[in-house]
Amino acid sequence: MTDTFSERGSAHEVEEGPALAPRFDADGLVTCVATDAANGDVLMVAHMNAEALARTIESGQAWYYSRSRRALWRKGESSGHVQRVTEMRIDCDQDAVWIKVEQARPGACHTGRRSCFYRAVPLGKAPDGSQVLEFRDAEKAFDPQAVYGKADPSKST
Amino acid sequence: MTDTFSERGSAHEVEEGPALAPRFDADGLVTCVATDAANGDVLMVAHMNAEALARTIESGQAWYYSRSRRALWRKGESSGHVQRVTEMRIDCDQDAVWIKVEQARPGACHTGRRSCFYRAVPLGKAPDGSQVLEFRDAEKAFDPQAVYGKADPSKST
Repeated sequence: MTDTFSERGSAHEVEEGPALAPRFDADGLVTCVATDAANGDVLMVAHMNAEALARTIESGQAWYYSRSRRALWRKGESSGHVQRVTEMRIDCDQDAVWIKVEQARPGACHTGRRSCFYRAVPLGKAPDGSQVLEFRDAEKAFDPQAVYGKADPSKST
Repeated sequence: MTDTFSERGSAHEVEEGPALAPRFDADGLVTCVATDAANGDVLMVAHMNAEALARTIESGQAWYYSRSRRALWRKGESSGHVQRVTEMRIDCDQDAVWIKVEQARPGACHTGRRSCFYRAVPLGKAPDGSQVLEFRDAEKAFDPQAVYGKADPSKST
């Protein structure tokens, strides 16, 4: 499947050239950041293997690779919370992908929030184990039990 | 240094609790996405080890861990292109961090661009190796040779 993409050339070719030549890590993955096309919020950070990347490009819908389940998954496959990709960007050394998405249905996070990033880390003090996270934009956008059923929601899509 | 943070409890505690208990991977890293506080653009994706995360929290300036150089680095250390963190968020399972930053000086990318994500991947066709990336927002914001000198700029900060 990695044959789908161009071979990696020199650093200059990878950074300044027009060829899509992703650098998959030892596990065959690139990092993918999905932001909300409407407001720029980061919705989630996940991974894509070559097949997930190819399917995302071809379909315009977000596909990922779950490291915990060791499986390819189309976001929203079971939940209906699909992500339509409005733009895909790749970074300088081509080991990270940024997709802007229209998130169908209320949320991207398996906990029921719109974004996975619903807690802020207070700044300005050395963390000492008593650091207290602040919940922000943390209201539940949907009921994960209703959407994902009784299965472990962290294994849900 | 990982002692700095809380121990990880149950999935429920990690996801719904107020304790900062990052999940560092086998290499001791979490993924960090830096977005432009002004417009939400993703500037870069990098990694933090426990010390980089702790220093970022304490100082309010972005510190990272370079996998290629195997070294802690303060963003802008040599270039002056520091990142002041206006907000830090952590995701549901606490293995990814999102920082909103004010990027000092013109750019975050060692190639001279404001963002590392200066190329778009066209959607809607199966990638076949002839995929042509489209340069977007790709004008150079600074001269990397002037800022980083003749050293390999991919090794620069």
